[in-house]
Amino acid sequence: MNKSREVYAVIIAGGSGTRFWPLSREETPKQLLSIGSDKQTLLQATVSRVSPMIPLERTYIVTNSGQAESINLQLFPITGASWDSRLIVEPEAKNTAPAIGLAAIHLRHLDPQAIMVVLPSDHVIKNKKKFHNSVLIGVRASADGYIVTIGIKPDKPETGYGYIKSGKRIKEGIYNVEKFIEKPDKNNALKYLKDGNYYWNSGMFIWQADTILAAIKKYMPKLHEGLAKIEKALGTGKSKEITETVFSKFKPESIDYGVLERADNVAVVPAEIGWSDVGNWNALDCVMPVDMDNNVKKGNIISIDNKNSILYCGSRLVAAAGLENMVVVDTPDATLICSRDKAQDVRKVVDILKKRGAKEYMTHITVFRPWGSFTVLETSDRFKIKKIEVKPGAKLSHQLHHHRSEHWIVVSGTARVTNGDKAYDVHSNESTYIPMSTRHRLENPGKIPLQIIEVQNGDYLEEDDIIRFEDAYKRKTEK
Amino acid sequence: MNKSREVYAVIIAGGSGTRFWPLSREETPKQLLSIGSDKQTLLQATVSRVSPMIPLERTYIVTNSGQAESINLQLFPITGASWDSRLIVEPEAKNTAPAIGLAAIHLRHLDPQAIMVVLPSDHVIKNKKKFHNSVLIGVRASADGYIVTIGIKPDKPETGYGYIKSGKRIKEGIYNVEKFIEKPDKNNALKYLKDGNYYWNSGMFIWQADTILAAIKKYMPKLHEGLAKIEKALGTGKSKEITETVFSKFKPESIDYGVLERADNVAVVPAEIGWSDVGNWNALDCVMPVDMDNNVKKGNIISIDNKNSILYCGSRLVAAAGLENMVVVDTPDATLICSRDKAQDVRKVVDILKKRGAKEYMTHITVFRPWGSFTVLETSDRFKIKKIEVKPGAKLSHQLHHHRSEHWIVVSGTARVTNGDKAYDVHSNESTYIPMSTRHRLENPGKIPLQIIEVQNGDYLEEDDIIRFEDAYKRKTEK
Repeated sequence: MNKSREVYAVIIAGGSGTRFWPLSREETPKQLLSIGSDKQTLLQATVSRVSPMIPLERTYIVTNSGQAESINLQLFPITGASWDSRLIVEPEAKNTAPAIGLAAIHLRHLDPQAIMVVLPSDHVIKNKKKFHNSVLIGVRASADGYIVTIGIKPDKPETGYGYIKSGKRIKEGIYNVEKFIEKPDKNNALKYLKDGNYYWNSGMFIWQADTILAAIKKYMPKLHEGLAKIEKALGTGKSKEITETVFSKFKPESIDYGVLERADNVAVVPAEIGWSDVGNWNALDCVMPVDMDNNVKKGNIISIDNKNSILYCGSRLVAAAGLENMVVVDTPDATLICSRDKAQDVRKVVDILKKRGAKEYMTHITVFRPWGSFTVLETSDRFKIKKIEVKPGAKLSHQLHHHRSEHWIVVSGTARVTNGDKAYDVHSNESTYIPMSTRHRLENPGKIPLQIIEVQNGDYLEEDDIIRFEDAYKRKTEK
Repeated sequence: MNKSREVYAVIIAGGSGTRFWPLSREETPKQLLSIGSDKQTLLQATVSRVSPMIPLERTYIVTNSGQAESINLQLFPITGASWDSRLIVEPEAKNTAPAIGLAAIHLRHLDPQAIMVVLPSDHVIKNKKKFHNSVLIGVRASADGYIVTIGIKPDKPETGYGYIKSGKRIKEGIYNVEKFIEKPDKNNALKYLKDGNYYWNSGMFIWQADTILAAIKKYMPKLHEGLAKIEKALGTGKSKEITETVFSKFKPESIDYGVLERADNVAVVPAEIGWSDVGNWNALDCVMPVDMDNNVKKGNIISIDNKNSILYCGSRLVAAAGLENMVVVDTPDATLICSRDKAQDVRKVVDILKKRGAKEYMTHITVFRPWGSFTVLETSDRFKIKKIEVKPGAKLSHQLHHHRSEHWIVVSGTARVTNGDKAYDVHSNESTYIPMSTRHRLENPGKIPLQIIEVQNGDYLEEDDIIRFEDAYKRKTEK
C-alpha cells in the first residue's frame, strides 16, 4: 500500500427504500432504519463498520438535501458533531454514476491522491474482520490503478443480482474481471453457484478518485464534462448553484453500466463477509434470528401455528394464526400484510399512497428533530394533539404561527417558555397558552427529558405554518 | 291465532362473542357490534326486525348485569326511553335453559297466558317478511300447546350446527319433530342436505310460557324447583337476591338438550329466511357483499391480488397483497391476521390475552357512556390523554379523583364546568384545571357536541378512581 495516499470512505445514502414500507417512509428511507438490529440504523452501522479502518474525518456521505438533517441527527451520537462539512449533497437522484462522480471531484479537490472506498449505506455485513480485509486488498490494488469491486461469493442461486465472473489472478485475493453478467435466470444462477468463479455485484468499489474520473472521461464523456464544470466551481461560492444546473442535465446512469462493464482495468476481490443487501421484507430472515418454525418475530405479537413468516411489529398488539410464507409489518398508523412472493409489490402500495397524497407515504406519526421528537396523537379539521419530547438542554426555534394557538401541558420535566415578551418556567402538571401570532419558544433547561402535550386550535394546522426567528440548528429563519 | 293471548319477544343477549376479537371485547360482545351492517348492531337489528310484529313494550331482553348499561345505550335511539324495566338480568351465565326459564317465569308473572318468541340477539336474517311469516306459523301452533322451533333449510353441508329432522305434517308450514341430531360429519351433512327433511337448529323458539315451564318441570325438575322459588319472590323486593342465590346453584344446560330433545310436543317451522348465525369471521362473506375475487373489504384498505379473504378494517391504513383464504381484522389498538381455517383459533388468542390481563381483551380505546364517549389517546405511568365527547344537553357525574388532577382544553363546543364551589363556562380554545380531590362536573349546555382534550396527571390513572356524588344516569354514587 502506497503510504503517501490517504483513504476516504464514500457512503452512498440517497435511496428511497420504498420496499420497506410501512417502516420506511419518504422522510425515513431504508438506510435510516434499524432493520435486523435494535441498536443501530443501517447507516449508523455502515459508518461504525468502516470507522476502525478509515477515520471519521475522512468519511463522506453522498445524499440528497431532504435527508441531510436526518443523517446529521443519526450520526451525532457517533461523532458528537455535525457532519455537515462531510455531506456531499446531490441536487437530484441520478443513479450511481453522477453521485460517485460528484464525490470523486470533491475528494480530488481536497486531495489529488485520494483513494475512495465506495459503500452503500443500507447493506448488512456480519463479518467485519473479513470485510476490513477485503477492503484492504482493494485499497492496495487501487493504488496500482485498478478499478476494484468487491464480489460476494454466492451461497444460493440468487436471480435478483448481477454477477461478476473472475478471470486471471492478479495477487492473493484479487482477480481480473472477465465479465459482468446481468441478473440471470434460475438455471444460469445454479450454474454460476456451482462454477465457483462467479460473484454477486455488491455495489462496493475501491479506486483512486483520479482513476475513476479518468474512466468516466473515457466512457461517459458528457458526465465528465459536467463534473469538470462543478470541479472548477468548488470553493468559489458558486458551487451549489452550478452543481444544481449541471446535475439537472445528467442522465441517470449506474457506474456499473457506464464504466465498470467497459473498462479493462477492473478487478474483483472475492469476499465471504456475511453480506446481505436486505432488498425487501423477504430478506429479513437472513439478518434476524428465526424461531423453530422459521418465523422472524419482533414486537407485541401473539403467534399461533405460523410457519416461515416475517412478523415485524412494534408495541401495538398483533395476533397471527395459521400464517405460512407471509409478511406482516405493523407500525402505529399503517399495517402491511402480504405473501412472501408478493414482497416486491410493496412498491405498488407506495405508488398508490403517493398518488393519493396519503400521509402514510410521507412520514411516521413520530417525527425526530434535532431537539427531540413529536408524535401526532390526533388530528381533526380544527385541532391537533401532539406529544412533544425535548432533550435536556435543547430548545425549539423562536417561532410564531399565523393560524393556530397552542395549549401546552407539561407532563414530565420543566419547560422554559418564551411567550411574547415574557419568559417563565412551567412545571409538571402546569399549563400555559400561546396565542396566535405570538412569538414563542420552548426549551428544556433541565436534566431529564421534557414531555409536553400540545393542543393546537386553528383553521390551518400543518407543519409549514412556522415562522422561525432564531434556530439553534441553523434551520431557515426570517430576517 | 288465539286473540286472547299476547305475544312477547324474548331476546337472549348474554354471549361473550370472543370469536369476533379484536372487534369484540369483553365490554362489547358480538351482539353489541354492527357486523355486516353500517347502520345497526346485531342487537339493534334484532329488535328492529321483531318490532313490526311485537310492540316494543312487549319485547324483553335477557342479559347479564355487565351488559345492561350498553344495551340501554344501544336501544335508546330506537325506543327513546330506558329499557330497564324490560331487561331480565341473569346473575350468571348458565347456558340457555336457566335464561329461558327465568324469562318464562317473569312473563307468566305478568301475563299467565303469555306466548314467548325466543330469539338470539346476534344472528343475521335477510328476509324479514319470511321471518315474520315463520314466527306467525309458530305463534299459532304455540297457542295449541306446541313447543315450536324454527328450522333453517340448509343450503350447504354445514357440520357446525345441530340438525332437526321433520316428521308428520301438522299444518301448512309446520311439522312434528322426528328427532334432533348432533353436529354431523361431512358425509351425513351431505345426506341431510340432499334428503330435504333436515333443518338447522337456529335457537329460535316459540311457545307459551306455561308450556315451556311445564316441560321444564317434567324434564328438568331441579331447574324448575329453583325457578319456582324465584317466581314466588317476584314483586316482593327480594327477587334480585333470591335470583342470585338460586342461579348460583343451577347447572349450565341448554334448552335443546334439557327439554326439546326429550319432549314429544315439539314442532318445527321450516324456514328459508336468509339466516346466518355469523359464528366467526369466516362467516362474514355470507352477510356482506364480496368483490370479483370473493373478498369482503371494509375500511381504509389497499388491496392487491387478494382472493377469498376477509379484510375488515377501520380508518387505520391496511395494505394487503397476495392473500388467499385469509382473515384480517384491524382496530385502533389490535390487529388479527389468520388463515380462514384458523378462524376458530381466535378463542385461543383471547384466552392468552385474558391470562395476561391485557387491556386489548377488555375494552376498546373508545368507550361509550350514557353522556357520550371517551377515547384514550396515550397512556404512561404518570399521565393519560383522553378525547372526551359530550352529547348536547348531557353531563358527566359530579365526581372527584383522589389520585389525579385534570387539565381540560375545549376544542369544540362549550363546556359548563363545576370546579369545587365555582361554576363557569369554558369555550373553544380555552382551558381549565381541576386539582386533585376537587369535586367537579363536566356538562354540555350547548346544541352541538362538546369535545375536550383531557390531560390527567397522577400516580394512579385507572377508571375506578372516580367517587361519584350525583349521576344523571343512576350509576353508583356516594351517600
